[in-house]
Amino acid sequence: MSHYIAETEIQLLYADTDMMGVMYHGNYVKWLELGRIQLIEDIGFSYVEMEKSGFVAPIHNVNITYKTPIQYGDRAFVRTWVSKNTGIRVEYGFEIVNQNRDVCSEGTVTCIVGKKLPEGGFKPVNFKKTFPEWFEKYEEIKVK
Amino acid sequence: MSHYIAETEIQLLYADTDMMGVMYHGNYVKWLELGRIQLIEDIGFSYVEMEKSGFVAPIHNVNITYKTPIQYGDRAFVRTWVSKNTGIRVEYGFEIVNQNRDVCSEGTVTCIVGKKLPEGGFKPVNFKKTFPEWFEKYEEIKVK
Amino acid sequence: MSHYIAETEIQLLYADTDMMGVMYHGNYVKWLELGRIQLIEDIGFSYVEMEKSGFVAPIHNVNITYKTPIQYGDRAFVRTWVSKNTGIRVEYGFEIVNQNRDVCSEGTVTCIVGKKLPEGGFKPVNFKKTFPEWFEKYEEIKVK
Amino acid sequence: MSHYIAETEIQLLYADTDMMGVMYHGNYVKWLELGRIQLIEDIGFSYVEMEKSGFVAPIHNVNITYKTPIQYGDRAFVRTWVSKNTGIRVEYGFEIVNQNRDVCSEGTVTCIVGKKLPEGGFKPVNFKKTFPEWFEKYEEIKVK
Repeated sequence: MSHYIAETEIQLLYADTDMMGVMYHGNYVKWLELGRIQLIEDIGFSYVEMEKSGFVAPIHNVNITYKTPIQYGDRAFVRTWVSKNTGIRVEYGFEIVNQNRDVCSEGTVTCIVGKKLPEGGFKPVNFKKTFPEWFEKYEEIKVK
Repeated sequence: MSHYIAETEIQLLYADTDMMGVMYHGNYVKWLELGRIQLIEDIGFSYVEMEKSGFVAPIHNVNITYKTPIQYGDRAFVRTWVSKNTGIRVEYGFEIVNQNRDVCSEGTVTCIVGKKLPEGGFKPVNFKKTFPEWFEKYEEIKVK
Repeated sequence: MSHYIAETEIQLLYADTDMMGVMYHGNYVKWLELGRIQLIEDIGFSYVEMEKSGFVAPIHNVNITYKTPIQYGDRAFVRTWVSKNTGIRVEYGFEIVNQNRDVCSEGTVTCIVGKKLPEGGFKPVNFKKTFPEWFEKYEEIKVK
Repeated sequence: MSHYIAETEIQLLYADTDMMGVMYHGNYVKWLELGRIQLIEDIGFSYVEMEKSGFVAPIHNVNITYKTPIQYGDRAFVRTWVSKNTGIRVEYGFEIVNQNRDVCSEGTVTCIVGKKLPEGGFKPVNFKKTFPEWFEKYEEIKVK
């Protein structure tokens, strides 16, 4: 497996539309999550299991460019790949395409990984050292 | 204080509109939360403190009737009172009014109170016994 | 076809969780929409087409009882049927079940149908007269 | 008035939290909207009036960096300014601060302005030519 791009369909809701008659732009952020989860699952890991083992992967940066609006009744798919894998942060590239394969949106999401603290806080960890196999898999599938 | 009705303004967002050009009906549920929080604060208690002390108040039932749509640019206020206080469950009555005091929506929300379990679960408690002063205050302000 | 119950899977998002560690109760309302859309499609009609032809179906009442929380990582399915069909209003019954077929939530949603007015308003119509075939189909599949 | 920064409080909802116990990162996008609306109002214009006159201002790009999580019970404020004003696109800079004036998040949002088409589409217009006074005001208050 190399240069892997995960793809998954987004379930579009009426609730996600706005008064411009299109999917509200703020909703795209939550759909990107679906893409990362799919990518992680496709290569044999599990975000849910990672959280259960006491880790979380909060978002450090989101950068989204909007190109074509998505309408209620359209179909939409999020395509996700690893674009940077520094050992500390992971940057995911993404595009959202519609039923005609028009690129509706594209950009990047950067995550860090950390340990949940019992008192509610969060302590960043070194992804490469803490999840060496996961890191290696990301090295392998990374899209340069 | 008797027959108390709390009132608080809702911050209406463009994100909350839908393609019918009005506030999406599903969003009303989250606004009811603002009303309960205001009521609790007005009578001298704190929902945040309650959660910090290990309790939560999940919703058992929501019943909403929609009467007049709310549009972006309108102002909206949620009015909340205690309608039933059995010692186990609390039923809150509410109405949402706009800048002209038209009733846009009305209904009830029923909560139970419980203890968060370390393993992730939830164990219902007797509200009257666990929070006797809070229960008494609710008896006092209840709108029959 | 008689006593028809439509079933469709809900795409659960991390965004839909709350700090109690479960799916936020207000999100259930938007999922009910998926159930109605599926039911309508299963019997050969289309909500999107109805809107394109100038009609909308705003919600008049939502009544939801919560029974078992839904967690991130669970699967959830909404089951929907016609429970009342007066010619003016349609009441849909629903239940949301998880991967173990536990009933997580149940209740009703009542809709009215109307014509979108060019100036932004909404004029209720008689569902039976305006959509006679649709009304008849609902009579046929209604769960008494 | 020069180098103007608008500030407005965000109404934080329980609905906006996620199972990490903090405000879900995707919700920040909708709060940025509040900041732009406040800025526009503070300098004497109205987004609602602009939409009523047949224009919309869809988002072209959002870039958000997350620095400190926001918790339920915190207070949060969005500070917004004009950072670029090309005549075609407007780039707004923002930061979200909490009750201690910690910067929780910062970034930019880029908008374009266009005319709503009766058939549902959108035709970009030249902001400088279509709204000359608004454009001039933005030149005046821009934070270089």
